[in-house]
Amino acid sequence: MRNLLLTISYRGTNYHGFQVQNNAITVSQVLQSAIEKILDHKIELKGCSRTDTGVHANRYCLNFKTNKSILCLNLVRALNTILPSDIVAKSCQEVDLGFHARYSCKKKEYIYKIWNSEIPSPFLIDLVYNYKYKIDEKILDKQAKSFIGTYDFKSFCNFKKGKSLEDTVRTIYNCGVERQEENLVIFKVCGDGFLYNMVRIMVGTLIFIQEKKIKQDSILDIIKNKDRSLAGKTAPARGLYLNNIFY
Amino acid sequence: MRNLLLTISYRGTNYHGFQVQNNAITVSQVLQSAIEKILDHKIELKGCSRTDTGVHANRYCLNFKTNKSILCLNLVRALNTILPSDIVAKSCQEVDLGFHARYSCKKKEYIYKIWNSEIPSPFLIDLVYNYKYKIDEKILDKQAKSFIGTYDFKSFCNFKKGKSLEDTVRTIYNCGVERQEENLVIFKVCGDGFLYNMVRIMVGTLIFIQEKKIKQDSILDIIKNKDRSLAGKTAPARGLYLNNIFY
Repeated sequence: MRNLLLTISYRGTNYHGFQVQNNAITVSQVLQSAIEKILDHKIELKGCSRTDTGVHANRYCLNFKTNKSILCLNLVRALNTILPSDIVAKSCQEVDLGFHARYSCKKKEYIYKIWNSEIPSPFLIDLVYNYKYKIDEKILDKQAKSFIGTYDFKSFCNFKKGKSLEDTVRTIYNCGVERQEENLVIFKVCGDGFLYNMVRIMVGTLIFIQEKKIKQDSILDIIKNKDRSLAGKTAPARGLYLNNIFY
Repeated sequence: MRNLLLTISYRGTNYHGFQVQNNAITVSQVLQSAIEKILDHKIELKGCSRTDTGVHANRYCLNFKTNKSILCLNLVRALNTILPSDIVAKSCQEVDLGFHARYSCKKKEYIYKIWNSEIPSPFLIDLVYNYKYKIDEKILDKQAKSFIGTYDFKSFCNFKKGKSLEDTVRTIYNCGVERQEENLVIFKVCGDGFLYNMVRIMVGTLIFIQEKKIKQDSILDIIKNKDRSLAGKTAPARGLYLNNIFY
């Protein structure tokens, strides 16, 4: 038996997230069908993370088991000939049988892309959040540093229907905001895990600080109060990218 | 009477080029309807250039006349509320009555984007030409310099049904190839005008040089022979962008 770790990238616009759902097309389902077609047997896919509808992934990892002897490189090539063009297989490697894409994960990194201009880009539809008022990235970068540390992030988690509240303590290793191009502002955050909508609420809170709807230097207070209503809005899914997974 | 110069940007994927056609949706038609809706009278749009199906524009200029007193900035904003998201109005200014977006144009700049990796990008579908074999951009840059000058570029022009052969002499002011990111190779060319498919044939010829189907240092010979069959293939439309227009 072999355990294969597959790394993919996808544009989330046309999918209802990664995880299998009953009534909607997800990345997982499309990928599973493609792999099963190539291997000619049923597989069980283990994804590294749930992602929401419209969220993208620069680097997403998953694993599955097979007895087939197909070369990793050939599997990647075969996948890229049959997958739709918005899901791309990047690499594949054989890993220990005990490896699990989700439970073996040590750190995850997300980025959030803000197109900061009154004039939207016709080439980035569904790939960025358009925000027309000038962002002061230096101020937001300083504010974002308050997220670094181990805290109960209950204020930065939306309630999910039918889900009981889990442990809401998470560790953020790094967090910052920078202007990458004239009109492109990037929020980047790395942590041991993230709550439901957590990154999008972090971004929405920074936007509210930019708009003076939330005071500067109050992020630690918002965290301590464990009250979702004190944080900012949930920024739109289309700006969010799972950027890296560390094992 | 006012003559307004409008600058737009568009993703060409969903359009049959810029110019009005009888049986297909073009950028020009969509834009004209939008402007007429705002101004509440018929207009005659003069575009700076024809572009082919699937070709994009970072900066495209056009002009039209109106008696309405609408502020330029307000016209831009109004357009961006009613245009589809793949066409964006960038700016507008009042110009001399004699100004014509096409005939007043002094120079045009095109870029051609090549995604140079075996692994395509799910975010750049229809926005780049995927080419998987490693490109030597330094060699191609040196080869591209041969295009600079005033020549009869008949070898770099496809025959267009129903069009008689026009004057095929053009001046190329600048031309080059560079690797902009790890996987992104950019061909850039600036000239006084371009023949039908000329930029795409220039790119296709450089690709043929990369593939040793055409010998290095033979571009000048191909130009002198005025024979289309000696040049390379026509590179796909989706990598091509009208990048700038100089008046």
